[in-house]
This record gives sequence, C-alpha cells and structure tokens, in this order.
Amino acid sequence: MPSNYRNFRNSVPWLILVLEAVFIVLFYFLFPGDVAVSSVSYSAFKDVNRMLIFGFGFFLTFLKRYGFSSTGLNLLISLLGVQCSALIEGLLAFLQQRENEGHLERIAKAAVSTTAVVISTGAVLGKANPVQLILMAVVEIIVFDLSRWITKTFLQIPDNISMMHVHLFGAYFGLAVSSRFSEPSPKSEKNASTPKSDLLSMLGTLFLWVFWPSFNSVQAGNDKNKAICNTYFALAVSAVMAFTLSVLTTKDGKFRMTDIHSAVLAGGVTVGHAACSINYPWIAMILGLLASVIAILGSYCSQRCLNPALKIHDTSGIHFTFGLPGVLGALAHIVLLIIKNWTDFPRVGYLVLVHLGAFCLTISVALVIGFITGLILNLKLFKTVPGSKYFDDQFYWEFPHLAVGF
Amino acid sequence: MPSNYRNFRNSVPWLILVLEAVFIVLFYFLFPGDVAVSSVSYSAFKDVNRMLIFGFGFFLTFLKRYGFSSTGLNLLISLLGVQCSALIEGLLAFLQQRENEGHLERIAKAAVSTTAVVISTGAVLGKANPVQLILMAVVEIIVFDLSRWITKTFLQIPDNISMMHVHLFGAYFGLAVSSRFSEPSPKSEKNASTPKSDLLSMLGTLFLWVFWPSFNSVQAGNDKNKAICNTYFALAVSAVMAFTLSVLTTKDGKFRMTDIHSAVLAGGVTVGHAACSINYPWIAMILGLLASVIAILGSYCSQRCLNPALKIHDTSGIHFTFGLPGVLGALAHIVLLIIKNWTDFPRVGYLVLVHLGAFCLTISVALVIGFITGLILNLKLFKTVPGSKYFDDQFYWEFPHLAVGF
Amino acid sequence: MPSNYRNFRNSVPWLILVLEAVFIVLFYFLFPGDVAVSSVSYSAFKDVNRMLIFGFGFFLTFLKRYGFSSTGLNLLISLLGVQCSALIEGLLAFLQQRENEGHLERIAKAAVSTTAVVISTGAVLGKANPVQLILMAVVEIIVFDLSRWITKTFLQIPDNISMMHVHLFGAYFGLAVSSRFSEPSPKSEKNASTPKSDLLSMLGTLFLWVFWPSFNSVQAGNDKNKAICNTYFALAVSAVMAFTLSVLTTKDGKFRMTDIHSAVLAGGVTVGHAACSINYPWIAMILGLLASVIAILGSYCSQRCLNPALKIHDTSGIHFTFGLPGVLGALAHIVLLIIKNWTDFPRVGYLVLVHLGAFCLTISVALVIGFITGLILNLKLFKTVPGSKYFDDQFYWEFPHLAVGF
Repeated sequence: MPSNYRNFRNSVPWLILVLEAVFIVLFYFLFPGDVAVSSVSYSAFKDVNRMLIFGFGFFLTFLKRYGFSSTGLNLLISLLGVQCSALIEGLLAFLQQRENEGHLERIAKAAVSTTAVVISTGAVLGKANPVQLILMAVVEIIVFDLSRWITKTFLQIPDNISMMHVHLFGAYFGLAVSSRFSEPSPKSEKNASTPKSDLLSMLGTLFLWVFWPSFNSVQAGNDKNKAICNTYFALAVSAVMAFTLSVLTTKDGKFRMTDIHSAVLAGGVTVGHAACSINYPWIAMILGLLASVIAILGSYCSQRCLNPALKIHDTSGIHFTFGLPGVLGALAHIVLLIIKNWTDFPRVGYLVLVHLGAFCLTISVALVIGFITGLILNLKLFKTVPGSKYFDDQFYWEFPHLAVGF
Repeated sequence: MPSNYRNFRNSVPWLILVLEAVFIVLFYFLFPGDVAVSSVSYSAFKDVNRMLIFGFGFFLTFLKRYGFSSTGLNLLISLLGVQCSALIEGLLAFLQQRENEGHLERIAKAAVSTTAVVISTGAVLGKANPVQLILMAVVEIIVFDLSRWITKTFLQIPDNISMMHVHLFGAYFGLAVSSRFSEPSPKSEKNASTPKSDLLSMLGTLFLWVFWPSFNSVQAGNDKNKAICNTYFALAVSAVMAFTLSVLTTKDGKFRMTDIHSAVLAGGVTVGHAACSINYPWIAMILGLLASVIAILGSYCSQRCLNPALKIHDTSGIHFTFGLPGVLGALAHIVLLIIKNWTDFPRVGYLVLVHLGAFCLTISVALVIGFITGLILNLKLFKTVPGSKYFDDQFYWEFPHLAVGF
Repeated sequence: MPSNYRNFRNSVPWLILVLEAVFIVLFYFLFPGDVAVSSVSYSAFKDVNRMLIFGFGFFLTFLKRYGFSSTGLNLLISLLGVQCSALIEGLLAFLQQRENEGHLERIAKAAVSTTAVVISTGAVLGKANPVQLILMAVVEIIVFDLSRWITKTFLQIPDNISMMHVHLFGAYFGLAVSSRFSEPSPKSEKNASTPKSDLLSMLGTLFLWVFWPSFNSVQAGNDKNKAICNTYFALAVSAVMAFTLSVLTTKDGKFRMTDIHSAVLAGGVTVGHAACSINYPWIAMILGLLASVIAILGSYCSQRCLNPALKIHDTSGIHFTFGLPGVLGALAHIVLLIIKNWTDFPRVGYLVLVHLGAFCLTISVALVIGFITGLILNLKLFKTVPGSKYFDDQFYWEFPHLAVGF
C-alpha cells in the first residue's frame, strides 16, 4: 500500500501541473482580449456553473465513505474539463477563421459540454483513481467536442440540439469505460449509502432539478421561455411519476430513494432535444412521464438482467438516469420533427436522416472511444485501484480525526 | 403491518397516476401554445421554484428520522399542487374569457399558491401518510385558489395582496387539519431533532431567508425594488431579534434552534402584505421586530397553554412561523392604509372594509374547510398511521442499508 | 458555570436590543424614501447576500461541535454588520451632502463590507462569545467603512478597488484580535472536524466558489463581463492547483480537505483588485495559480513556524485563505498598473503611490485597531470563555435531545 501512495503522489500533482501549464500557454494564444458580445447572459452562465460544480458535486455524494472524493474530484475534473473544452472551441474557431464569441458564452458552452464528463464519472465513481479520472476527462471532452463539431459542420445540426447529445454521450462513454473496470466484490459494504449520504445526494438532486430549465434553455435564443416551461412541465411529471413507479417496483411497496434520484431528473434529460420546439405543455408532460417510466423500468431490468450479463457495473445508475432518457429524447425529437413537417416529404426525409445520423454517430463514437479509453486506463501503468479499496475516501484523503486543527 | 404496507402500495401509485392523467388531459384543453408575454421574469420564476422545492424541502428536515419524507414528499405534493393550481387558474381564465397569461407567469403564481400547501404540511408532518397528504394538497389548492379568486373578483383586492394571504391560509388550514389527527405519544423519541438534522433544517431556513425578497416581489411590478428592500430590512431585524428573544425565553438563557428557525422568517411573512407600499425602511424594520416578538412569544405561549387546551399538535410550529406573523401583517397593512388615506374618509372606510373582509374570509374558509378535510382524511378508508408509527421514514421508504448498491 | 450562563443571559439580549433600537432610530433619520435609481441590479444584490448569509454560514461549519454557532452567529453578526454599514454610508452621504444612492445599492455595498466581519470571525471562531463577536463586528465595520472612505476621498481610489480591500482588512483585523485570545489547549478534541462537518463546509465553499464572480463584479459597471470571466478563470486555476499542492505538502501524498477549502477560494480573492482591468484570461489564470501556491505554502509554513512563534491561533485559517491572497492581489494590481502605464512616467508614480498608500493604510489600521479591540474584548467585563469551553455549541445553545418537540 505505501508504494501505491507513493506512486499516487508521484503522478497526480505532476499530471495536473503539466495540464494546467499547457492550458495557460494555449489560453495565451487562443483567447485574445474579450471584444465580442456574449449571446449568453450572466444569469445563464451562473446557473450552468452552479449545476456543474454544486449540483453534480452533491448529486454524487450518496456513497457512505466517498463524500470527499465525490464533491472534491468532481470539482477538479469539471474545471479541467471546462478549460479544455473552452480551448478546443477556441482552436476550432481559430482554424475555421470564425469570428470570436464572447468569453462568457464560451465558458457557458464549455460547462455544458463538461456535463458529459461528470455523467461518465458517475459510472466509475469510487472505482477510478484521480489519474484515471483526469485522463478520462481530457479524452472525453476532446472527443465530445469533435463529435459535436462534426454533427454541426457536416450534418448541419443546430448548436442547441447537438449540445443536448451531452447526456447520451456522457452516459454511453461512461458505461463503455466502466465495462473495463473490475467489478467490486458483491459483499463490499462500502458500495452503499446511509440515510445521511442519501439526504445529501437528495440536496444535489433537488438543486439540479430546480436549475434544469436553465440548462435546457442556455442556447434557446428567442425560444427561451418555451424551453423553460417545457422543461419545467416534463420535470414535474417525471418527478411525480418517480414516486408511483418506485412504489410499484419495490418488494414492500415502499419508496426507494435511488429511484427518486434518477427518475426525478429523467424528464429534464428527455425533453432536452425538443425543449425549444414543443408548442404544447401536454406533449412535454407526456415526454416526462415516459422518461420516468423508462428510467425506473430500465433500472429494474438492468439490475436484474442486463448488467450481470454484460458485466457492467454502473455505480450511480447513469445508464437509466441519463442514457435511456437521452435516447428517448433524441427519438422523440425525430418523431416530433416528422409530425411537424409531414406535408413536406423530401424535407422530412432529410431531417430524419441527419438527426438519426447525429444520434448514431454520437452513440457509436461514445461507445468505441469509451471502450478504448477504458482499456488504456486499465493498463498497469495507471495503478488501478484494487477492488477491495473501491469506494473509500481514505485511500485518497487525509482524514480529519488525524489532523487536530491548524 | 404487512397489510398496511399492502394497502399503502395499493392506493398511493394509482392515486398519483389518476391525478397525473387527469392533469395531462386538462392541460391539453386549457393550456394552448404560449403566445402571451409573461410579466414575471425567469429570474423571479426560478427563485420562487427554488424556495418551494429546495428551501421548504430542507426547512422541514428537522425531525431525526423523517428526512427522506420531508424532502421527498414535499417534492411530490408541491409538484402536484403547482400543476393543479396552474389548471385552476387556466380554468378560471377560460370561464371568464380572460386573455391568457404567459405560461411562465402562470407557473410562478401557481408556485406561490402552492406555498400554502407546503406550510400546511408542516403541521401534519410525520403524522399524515402520503395518500392523506396528496388529498389534502389537492383540496387545499383548489379552495385557496377559489378563495383568492373571490377576494379578487368581488372585493377587488389586487393580485399581489391576495397572494400574500397564502401564509395565513396555509397556516390555519394546516392547524385545522392537524386538530383531527391523533396526538403523538408524548414519550415518542422520534418526534425530536438531532444536531445534524437541525443543521440541515438551518440550511433550508437560510435558503428561504435569502430568497424571501424574491417571493414578496414576484408580483410587485414597478414597486419591485421597494418590495425587495422592505422585505430585506424586515427579515434582517426579525432575524436579529430572534436571538434576543430566544435567550430571554429559554430557561438557561441559551439560544434555541427552533426559535431561530421560526422567527428568522417571520419578518418576511409579516411584511408581505405591505411590502410594495411601505415607503420608509424603519417601518419595515419595526414590522420585522414585531413579527419576531409575536413568533417567539406565540411559540412560548402556545406550547404551554393553547395547544394542550385545544389538543392541536403542530409538528413544525407553523402557527407562530406563518400564522401569527401573517395575521400581524394583514392587520399592519390595514393600519398603514388608514394612515395613508386618512384625509379621504369614505375611501378609508371602503379600503378597511374590503381588506378586513378578505382577511376574515381567508381565515374562516381555511379553518372550516381545513376542519372538514381533517375529518374526512381520518376516515378508516385512508388507513391513518398509528401514533406509534409517526415521524418514521422506515414506514414509507426502503432503507439504504438494506439495498447494497445497484 | 451557572453564573456564566446568567451573565451571558443578562448581557446578550440587551446588547442586541439596544443596538437594534439605535439602528431603527438612525434609519428613521438617515434613510428617506427610496427615490434614487440603483446602479446595482437585484441579481447582484441577491448573489452577495447569498454568499454572506448562506455561503459563509456553511463555510465555517467545519468544527465538529460548533455547527449551530457557525451558521447562527454568522447570521446574527452579518445582519448587524449590514445594518451598521448601511447607516455609516448614509451618515457619510448626509455629512458630505452627496446625492442618495438607491437602497438596493446601499445594502449590496454594506453586504460586501460586512464580508470583512465574517472573515475576521473565522479567526476567533469558537473562542469568542456572542457579546465579543457583536462588539467586534460593530467596531470593525465602522473602522473599515471609515478607512475605505479615507482611501476614497483622500487617495482617490475608485470604489470598486477600495471595496476589494475587504479581504485584507478582514483577515488582518481578525488575526490581530485573535492574538489577544488565549490559545486552546493543544489536546482539545473539540477543535477538529469530522468527515460530516467537513462535507458541510465543502457545501459552503462550493457555494462561495460559484458565486464569487458576482462578488468581484458587483461594482464593475461596464467591465462586468470582464470581471466575471477573469474571476472565473482565476478561481478555476486556483481550485485545480489546490489539489496538486495539497498532495505535495501532505506526508502521505493524500489530499487534505482544509487545503482544498482555503485554496479553492484564494484565486477569487487575489483577482479581486484587478478583475476589471485584466484584459487576457491567461493573466488571471497565472494570478489564480500564484494565489493557490501562496495559500497552501502559507498554510504549511504558518502552522509550523509563524503561528507558534507569534502565538496566534487562527481557527479557520483566514490568514492564508484571505490574508495572503489579498496581499498578493493588491501587489499584482500595482504591478499591472505599472505595466499598463509605464510610458507615462509621472502618472505611474502617482498611481503606485496612492495604491500602495491605500494598501498600507488598510493593513496598518486593521492591525492596530484589531489589536486594541482584542485587548478590550479580553477585559474581565466581557466574560471571556475559558479555553476548555472553546469550540462547543452546548455553551450557547439549548440542545435538541433535551427538548422533545413542541
């Protein structure tokens, strides 16, 4: 174990230091003085940042002995991800000789992209060490931004739609990475929550819940109010249905907190793609209802059949919180496009083709690159954590009772 | 007990499902596409939603074994309440052939109305089961919206004043409902808080505190800045006085956390009615001071005399947090109206009459309908919780230590 | 001990009551009706208030038995501080016959000033009793506002720069006061954190982190976007570097939570002075990096050498969270001024002189008055807490397990 500590000590700080040095140098070249006017308001910028740092930080604190790492490492990799994503956007703008956006807008977009990283983290929570997390974050954010750039440039998908692929990408990338990690021993006591940690996670969940309309409307432009209301209605119905379905799927007919955590947000994920184009609240509400159903039934089935068969261990259930609702949302968006334009046959065909193309591209890139990343991260080089040390803060953090004050 | 579980399982999900289905159908008819411009900004909408879902959710977590239910069931009934209230507003607009408001505005107003439900919940916290809570929420929101519509239509009370009756209505409805529930056994260990749960409740309280100016200014229009500053000053003084009075009323001369929780918010409740019309900060400050006095002395007296005599058990002390300060606020508003218009005698008489009328109507409707609702909810049909099972999450929630991860 | 309680009971409520009465009377004379237009938006006002009440309240909850006092007394003294500061500003405006600002603006500025008090509290956290804290708050806010007025009037320092001296002033005032308090016994078990309390403190820290850009841009006027982005970049780099440096300075090569808490915010403190004038993100990033280095190395050295030698006990490490980064920020601002204006020699000389003058004035006033305040507060008159009773909520709060419900 001491050698592990030493190795950890040897690699983490230098990795961060090198990355940060590279970032600062690149910022020097790619971020000139801020002259452009941002189309994103400070209010939207704030909300997205709060969700990323505060909301997801506490959303992931449900493990009983992993609270420090959940919030702390979430802060670390989110900020690396945001800087990296802002640089890639700057690089693409430079290469394409595009006009510069305002810095505020660029950071807000980078924060939305970084959500993919945070979602993926959920699948390997407690299993990956900081070095692995940082490398995963950097690879994922680069690949996601490139995949988004491809769908935008070659498939002409508007920015606000391609941005919503973030849940899909994050979930499937995370699952693919997670499939290469060894499973925790089923008797592990640490892979569990306590009432206190669940309550803290509820705090994060409710925080995300109330901010989700801001997330879906960050690039909505003139349709902002529509996107906000649709998201709100979808979230409301999915939260209410979470309680129903939770009672119906548990043995004793009680509520289950993990169901609430995941299904409560599913509505917001599902309605993301179509938030700007749905005209009637009832459509958003039905989407929210379906999202909740798919999230809880998905959780029910995948725990029983899918995960044991595929040997995928998904610590915080991102597959049914973000993955399946994301798939549903993308498909629902295509169906709504067909309904809206069904009189104009060639246009419908084209729209379906490009959106389906973007959807398939996103998922397949996520799965393939995620799988490769998972393979590389599990090389001996990266000192993988042994299964018995999973889900334990003490492996990474100096513990308070040992340090009596300053 | 198993039969109780089964019964619970049988009724809760179907009740929610039926309600949600009815809501979606009604939304189909009553919520056309959003064409109107909202007079409520997204910022106000957000703040009210955060208070309702996040603030009140954690404000109620002070019971040591009831944290899941406090936050979870608060989410459930708030969202049902908001949807129900938005529909009633839509129905009234449809029946009166009024022009449609924007959806954003309608949800924001519905969220303010739903505060009544959340406040009432405080009185029966830990004693009512989810079926009872849901039914109470639906009845209460319908009655409150109708009572508000009456005061608006027949008494010509402006919207921003009638909205502030929400605290009064919520508190007295809740007390009336609570009077029909059997009292918990006085030896019950579960009806207590721990330092941890009190701290979490403090989190909710502080969250509500910082957002309260948004609550009071949500419909203030041009007087928004005035309403914000007055609310801030009243809240500041009531919070400071809470510490003074807490020391003076406890035996050892120590601070008492529950006093702080309730008195800290009393100022915001009291100043609600008059927030838009007070011209000088010192008036708001004196109102805040009186609010704190009435909240803490009220708590002192009602625990000793009133509640034992009337056999009312008020779990989270809503009577002195929202009820008494609400009464004070309504009366103070009338006094201020008299002072402002005293030269114009007939007008003063008219104003006093309608405001006093609205006040009496609100309280009496709340008490009468609350009492009837309490009677109905305690029919055998609704499987009331036995006193020994009060204040216990385990009755409704599957507990984490039993479910080892996904 | 009983006599201590009685004394405490005798003085705290009357002190608060007298202060509050004086405040209300002064508000009557100094705060006329709000006619001026506020240059500060409600959004900025809200953010600063949330940081002060919610963010700092939970930032200070890391002590295991001092959570109630950390959040509760923070609320009490912040609100007294805000009212006091608003009055002083009103008095100065009245004496100088200045035009009135809007109330919103005045409260927002007062809240920023009050941050100094909250920071100072961090140094004596758990050691000072409420009477001492209240007196310290009143003295400190008066002295800080006067010192700010002097730098503004005589040294012509713009308002947004002089406001940023708040961290410097708060930290060094707090340290000077703290030097007069007896040190806690080194074996004291209470002067420590638990994983739960550290996590709650992380909640406050992350809350402060996400709101810090609002703090630095509250008076930025047209440079608001620039101030926001610069603060964000500095915070991001300092948070990332905190992890690196924490690993490098701990014995086992693990992360240390207290390092993260302090270094995460250091970037925002450092960039405060220059936030509006930095034109390139990379400069802000380098400042953030230096801030993190100075915070963590400062903590490392001062625990080992400085504090034992000077006999200063700094409970929450404000010296390296706010003090040293504040010094760095002030100096960096001067260096940036020199670089910007180096062609115009006489102007450079003048600018350096006044900014260095303001810096020295702030620090020396803070140290001298802080020292005197510390001396006075430790007179027998104020019933200082004995070292064995330090860091204990039970000394001030009635504990929940003793009070079974209402």
